[in-house]
Amino acid sequence: MAETFRIGLLGHGTVGSAFEALLAERADAFVPITGLRPEITGVLTRSRGDFEEVLANADLVVELIGGIEPARDYVLRAMKAGKHVVSANKQLLSQHGEELWACAREHGVQLRFEGAVAGVVPVIRVLQESLAATRVERIHGIVNGTTNYILTEMAARGLSYEEALQQAQELGYAEADPTDDVTGRDAAAKMAILARLAFSTPVHLDQVVYEGIEHLTADDMEYAKELGLGLKLIGTAERVDGGISVRVHPAFLYAAHPLASVHGPFNAVTVESDAITEVTLSGPGAGGPQTATAVLGDVISAMIPPACTPETTETLPVVADVKSAFYLAMEVDDEPGVLAQVAEVLGMQGASIKSVVQKGLGRQARLVMVLHPLLESRFYAAVQLISQMAFVRSTPRAIRVIDEEFS
Amino acid sequence: MAETFRIGLLGHGTVGSAFEALLAERADAFVPITGLRPEITGVLTRSRGDFEEVLANADLVVELIGGIEPARDYVLRAMKAGKHVVSANKQLLSQHGEELWACAREHGVQLRFEGAVAGVVPVIRVLQESLAATRVERIHGIVNGTTNYILTEMAARGLSYEEALQQAQELGYAEADPTDDVTGRDAAAKMAILARLAFSTPVHLDQVVYEGIEHLTADDMEYAKELGLGLKLIGTAERVDGGISVRVHPAFLYAAHPLASVHGPFNAVTVESDAITEVTLSGPGAGGPQTATAVLGDVISAMIPPACTPETTETLPVVADVKSAFYLAMEVDDEPGVLAQVAEVLGMQGASIKSVVQKGLGRQARLVMVLHPLLESRFYAAVQLISQMAFVRSTPRAIRVIDEEFS
Repeated sequence: MAETFRIGLLGHGTVGSAFEALLAERADAFVPITGLRPEITGVLTRSRGDFEEVLANADLVVELIGGIEPARDYVLRAMKAGKHVVSANKQLLSQHGEELWACAREHGVQLRFEGAVAGVVPVIRVLQESLAATRVERIHGIVNGTTNYILTEMAARGLSYEEALQQAQELGYAEADPTDDVTGRDAAAKMAILARLAFSTPVHLDQVVYEGIEHLTADDMEYAKELGLGLKLIGTAERVDGGISVRVHPAFLYAAHPLASVHGPFNAVTVESDAITEVTLSGPGAGGPQTATAVLGDVISAMIPPACTPETTETLPVVADVKSAFYLAMEVDDEPGVLAQVAEVLGMQGASIKSVVQKGLGRQARLVMVLHPLLESRFYAAVQLISQMAFVRSTPRAIRVIDEEFS
Repeated sequence: MAETFRIGLLGHGTVGSAFEALLAERADAFVPITGLRPEITGVLTRSRGDFEEVLANADLVVELIGGIEPARDYVLRAMKAGKHVVSANKQLLSQHGEELWACAREHGVQLRFEGAVAGVVPVIRVLQESLAATRVERIHGIVNGTTNYILTEMAARGLSYEEALQQAQELGYAEADPTDDVTGRDAAAKMAILARLAFSTPVHLDQVVYEGIEHLTADDMEYAKELGLGLKLIGTAERVDGGISVRVHPAFLYAAHPLASVHGPFNAVTVESDAITEVTLSGPGAGGPQTATAVLGDVISAMIPPACTPETTETLPVVADVKSAFYLAMEVDDEPGVLAQVAEVLGMQGASIKSVVQKGLGRQARLVMVLHPLLESRFYAAVQLISQMAFVRSTPRAIRVIDEEFS
């Protein structure tokens, strides 16, 4: 029976509930890795629980209350009591970060906060650890999913700002009061945290200049398309003459920019430096399960010693014959019934045609098709048969397709 | 005077030299963070140095020899002597990983290997730590920059495989003997490592099915374009009925796939799970400075306690007025000289026009332009003047542009 790693949970909203559900589902998987079984041993919400009691029964405290107080007080008290803390609180860290990080250093505990910026996109860890060796020159980020969803809809469907906002609210991508998101303030808090980590210099939310998306029109996007530009709410943190600049504002991007193809509620961050050129991280920026995954990742990291590749816990067979979608191209005699015969052989092996292009080339034709996924062994059996048919004039060419529905 | 953190360097090729240069440049930056000054205290190459001596003088060993022996023997001996090891050796880890990881666990040392897969793209750390909390379903990766460069050139310019390979060799993107890259074997080794980490099950390079790009033709790409497909060398590691599948082969991707827009020598990895949908990481996959940055990141991680946000080491001013490129749109009377007058006012503030579209709308015209970067204060001063000009019929609309050359 594994020992329990005790987690005190502060806050039980969307992310808190998702965290509890995810932990229950995954707890057993961590026993062989850590020797410990993580378990929630206390919960504090506005209406139930007692902080001192939750703290006394915890090895680590997860703070998902949000806002400044009482979150700040609880986090400080937990660290002073020698407990590790995991938080997803961007307001708190962008306004009281130095106080909290100093407290963590002083008491020798870990304060992890991956969930505070861009959800499960691991930008905090990458800045603090993977890219610790490089001198970061600039960060560009799409760090607010609500506004990116709204701008994506405005661009794709010509909706007005108001229409797109309403749609975002109906789908749960925007809150009833969207002020923090649409004014850029939420993104500004996240950029303050990223700038602090990238440049090792104190950055407070109040020092971040921000501008929102409320004044944008579908016309702006329409005209900009003619210039080859797409519109995003971009956070920037960069070295400039005399210091650094940290700001959030709508900005047009050329199509080749790595952030230009980030659509809908996704988040993405690009980190630039001379040595690495640029690294881009992208993924779902918000949502209960996603942020909960980031929070639980932090919890697991606090439980295990660093960089120990655990023993294997599975002995899964490595399967050789799998289902794939295929592109199939060949030259055939241009005569009636050819496609039907090819389709029949394919059908006998369970292959069905998704799309096909046939092109005349004098007395021959080129047949190019994409097939729905099927077992590779059956596909190659069909190709073997087809290649022996009298009307086939070239060795059929087969290349796999990563299918959009299948993936 | 900070104490020295002693690094023994095995191998002094492209990555080894880049590592030495990067360390010399960055060593001072780590003193305030770690209290230690990392320094190379011994180097072993084929022609110089003695392994026992390098080992005796090191706190950590960096293995950049490549291949199986003597790298395997050195890494094992270093760990048995209680030293941390950082390696970028994909051959070694994909064939002897279990032996090495077991040795690291047994001797309580760290074995880090971010540089072994996708260079500075932090996929190892993200799989081991950030995504430890999620049950990975599938990984898709472009993990070989040489083949991605060749395929990009074939698609963009209609080059044959042979022409594109030659060009890659001339530019240093492909080696004189490109066999390991173009056959898919290099990518297979990397996918074996990723599959091991994602699924906690032993995976040996010999279990990975791989197919290369040598047989692909420019025609394949041409026909596939008609079907909306782009061609990449894709590594896949996924759960399938009965176990897992790990394979590398050319595959077509639909344009919306996150890997479809990864061009040239870049690498990218997409990790999918139910809880997170998908996270994508991309960046330069190879190159001395990039891989050296990943190696040094691992070294720094081994030096510092986990998740301690260090004290700030800088007190950089946060600058409010920065240079930006701008989009500027307004409605004007459709009369001669309007554009010239606007351009003159802009020019007086140092703004120059990059592109402009003027469209008649009856008696008025819409003027939309993109300006080269200039100080924001000067831009807004110009806009203020322009908005007061008699022919201007709407409040000018100004939105920043992330400029392609500027960024």
